[in-house]
Amino acid sequence: MSIDGKTATDGISGPRVDYSRVFTQAIDRLHAEGRYRVFIDILRNKGAFPNARCFAGHNGPKPITVWCSNDYLAMGQHPKVIAAMEEALHDVGAGSGGTRNIGGNTHYHVDLEGELADLHGKEAALLFTSGYVSNEATLATLAKVLPGCIIFSDELNHASMIAGIRNSGCEKRVFRHNDLAHLEELLAAEDPAVPKLIAFESVYSMEGDIAPISAVCDLADRYNALTYCDEVHAVGMYGARGGGISERDDVAHRITILEGTLGKAFGVMGGYIAADRTIVDVIRSYAPGFIFTTSLSPVLVAGVLASVRHLKASSVERDGQQAAAAMLKAMLKDAGLPVMIGDTHIVPLMVGDPVKAKKISDVLLAEYGVYVQPINYPTVPRGTERLRFTPGPAHTEAMMRELTDALVEIWSRLDLRKAA
Amino acid sequence: MSIDGKTATDGISGPRVDYSRVFTQAIDRLHAEGRYRVFIDILRNKGAFPNARCFAGHNGPKPITVWCSNDYLAMGQHPKVIAAMEEALHDVGAGSGGTRNIGGNTHYHVDLEGELADLHGKEAALLFTSGYVSNEATLATLAKVLPGCIIFSDELNHASMIAGIRNSGCEKRVFRHNDLAHLEELLAAEDPAVPKLIAFESVYSMEGDIAPISAVCDLADRYNALTYCDEVHAVGMYGARGGGISERDDVAHRITILEGTLGKAFGVMGGYIAADRTIVDVIRSYAPGFIFTTSLSPVLVAGVLASVRHLKASSVERDGQQAAAAMLKAMLKDAGLPVMIGDTHIVPLMVGDPVKAKKISDVLLAEYGVYVQPINYPTVPRGTERLRFTPGPAHTEAMMRELTDALVEIWSRLDLRKAA
Ligand SMILES: Cc1ncc(COP(=O)(O)O)c(C=O)c1O
Ligand SMILES: Cc1ncc(COP(=O)(O)O)c(C=O)c1O
Repeated sequence: MSIDGKTATDGISGPRVDYSRVFTQAIDRLHAEGRYRVFIDILRNKGAFPNARCFAGHNGPKPITVWCSNDYLAMGQHPKVIAAMEEALHDVGAGSGGTRNIGGNTHYHVDLEGELADLHGKEAALLFTSGYVSNEATLATLAKVLPGCIIFSDELNHASMIAGIRNSGCEKRVFRHNDLAHLEELLAAEDPAVPKLIAFESVYSMEGDIAPISAVCDLADRYNALTYCDEVHAVGMYGARGGGISERDDVAHRITILEGTLGKAFGVMGGYIAADRTIVDVIRSYAPGFIFTTSLSPVLVAGVLASVRHLKASSVERDGQQAAAAMLKAMLKDAGLPVMIGDTHIVPLMVGDPVKAKKISDVLLAEYGVYVQPINYPTVPRGTERLRFTPGPAHTEAMMRELTDALVEIWSRLDLRKAA
Repeated sequence: MSIDGKTATDGISGPRVDYSRVFTQAIDRLHAEGRYRVFIDILRNKGAFPNARCFAGHNGPKPITVWCSNDYLAMGQHPKVIAAMEEALHDVGAGSGGTRNIGGNTHYHVDLEGELADLHGKEAALLFTSGYVSNEATLATLAKVLPGCIIFSDELNHASMIAGIRNSGCEKRVFRHNDLAHLEELLAAEDPAVPKLIAFESVYSMEGDIAPISAVCDLADRYNALTYCDEVHAVGMYGARGGGISERDDVAHRITILEGTLGKAFGVMGGYIAADRTIVDVIRSYAPGFIFTTSLSPVLVAGVLASVRHLKASSVERDGQQAAAAMLKAMLKDAGLPVMIGDTHIVPLMVGDPVKAKKISDVLLAEYGVYVQPINYPTVPRGTERLRFTPGPAHTEAMMRELTDALVEIWSRLDLRKAA
């Protein structure tokens, strides 16, 4: 029936649900909290990243500088990636035409899984349609295969891991962010005979801090737990070949399952896990989110293959990103802005209020042609709303200077809190 | 820790979980049941579909004919689709670089949502990374927004709908496949004041039969229930503009939420829902599976835009598909093979045994260069294992003749049951 609650003439009598009201109230709540999301309508200019066009205004597309892309290394615009995708498009066409099992397993998929397994020094890898699905499907399935499993989850884990854990139906213990003592306390409290899995991220993308992977693995060894590490914000960007923090710290072999995305530093779209052959085979064979869906377009897979191969051999992009991040942090700090100084490529600027965060972002876009999205609940906890900048190798010093000046002006205009 | 159960020297004592054994047993169960899946490694030849190359043998790629693709209308190879993707690739690059909310909302996404809303005569549409995710995310979220909601689900609903329903945490009532009397019995048994949602598909892809949408909507009106219809195997293929069975039967306006894929008849990848503006806004604002993931690559979205627009205006592909399906069904039936005769483009051939289904498929590939995947549990119920052919406009009468002759030969060689 239509949601306006019209009653069919032959309807049964009695109280009726007013669906329309329920839905409208759900939206009203977001407006009331100042966190109703409006999507900014943009098109990037290939070859000129971080430049883009914005369709928000009424006078046609307007040039902007993008400061919040997760195409961290601009690989989505890399000539090798574009060429590989163009070739695949002409060789095999637009889509895979099927699930991996039914007609949608192309040679590109097989090759990329080999390449990713090699990247992490694992026996096997498995592709998913996104990083979100890889987390959800793997965690939900893994835990089902291990009856009675308890999952130990960092409190700041990503929504996709939380979804997987919830959907697994397992018991869950949440440990304080990167807090090893708390994790150990929780591990020690459980029966040694029960299967355990520690789920965490390497780089936390909204904080920009890094998990102590090696120490987590020590605890996993001591308490006989498996480890699951989301390296979504690290693959391509850390380690000599882009294998992530686990490569940088030389601990990949100690992690049971590594998970990554193909949509951030690799610049395209998709997700994956890398692990022992048997575990990959279990997920491949049992995870509904892997089995019952059209496989990644071979065009995307071809692009990722080029991207992963390039970043295995080249550190120019990684070095450029680190230099840009360090420079922007220094500039913001020198200007007295409340930047969070972490060890990573992520530059968060704390605001602490959803309405103000949105206001700053609106002014930046309208008056300065700077696009940075406000980060509000539920992406970060309430009261920690922020702006999150992702400088990359293509952001110039001049762009950073303009950005810093703009922020200083807005900060004083809106009378915002400066750094302590 | 590694899964081979090695004990760290400083480990705690007591019984330890042997993870390796648990995982190996999970795989052994599949082998024992004869349903361990081996992916066939292929590359399609663009411009020559259904021809492809198979990498299974050891003498290099071998030419095959694909009979089980869900690129039903060969749109994944359509010149307009390829041209649109190539243009987008050069205009904006490989990936979107962000979630829809954070940097990943391109003008292509906005345009395609408008195009899909129009296709179904709905106020709005919302894109997801796949049809699987659209079902899972929408059903799980919708039901959470409607406290106490009961979901009425057809017993043959797709795994992605089942996942969404399970993850919603709602009560579920399963009605017998396309059985209106049973559905009404279940609806009538519940409190009229409780929110209700009927979830079903239009074309059931493994059976090839069609739901009585109009009659389901009558029941929804009578019992004040919302309706959710998965048109994954119908969009692009039915209705004057490819709006699906709901367009053909002129009932789209009576369905609360329509769901479709961009990876089958439209030939690319992705999924969507179309509904009233408020409902779309609720899902957009609350569904983790929509919010927390990199948006569809603009290259894919550009391809789908071309595909949807083409199929709105052209019925040549739809007519060709229907003619091919009718011809193949007639040939198989005349040859005495146990084909299931439905009203759709899908041609299932019943085998009833997983090992035999795989054997037939293996012989077809090895000896006849015909690729059709065996469909085993959990995709279909045990005991109903089958081969599933999807003839399209590009499958010729000669190909069908060859296929039929091959099947007749294999049927007698393996001494299989013929049609009654
Ligand atoms: C930590 C983390 N894991 C997983 C994901 C999901 O990856 P994807 O965008 O490929 O779905 C994201 C962000 O999108 C993320 O930030
Ligand atoms: C009925 C049905 N719904 C949903 C899906 C999922 O769509 P997608 O392949 O786009 O994930 C499929 C098949 O894959 C399906 O058969």
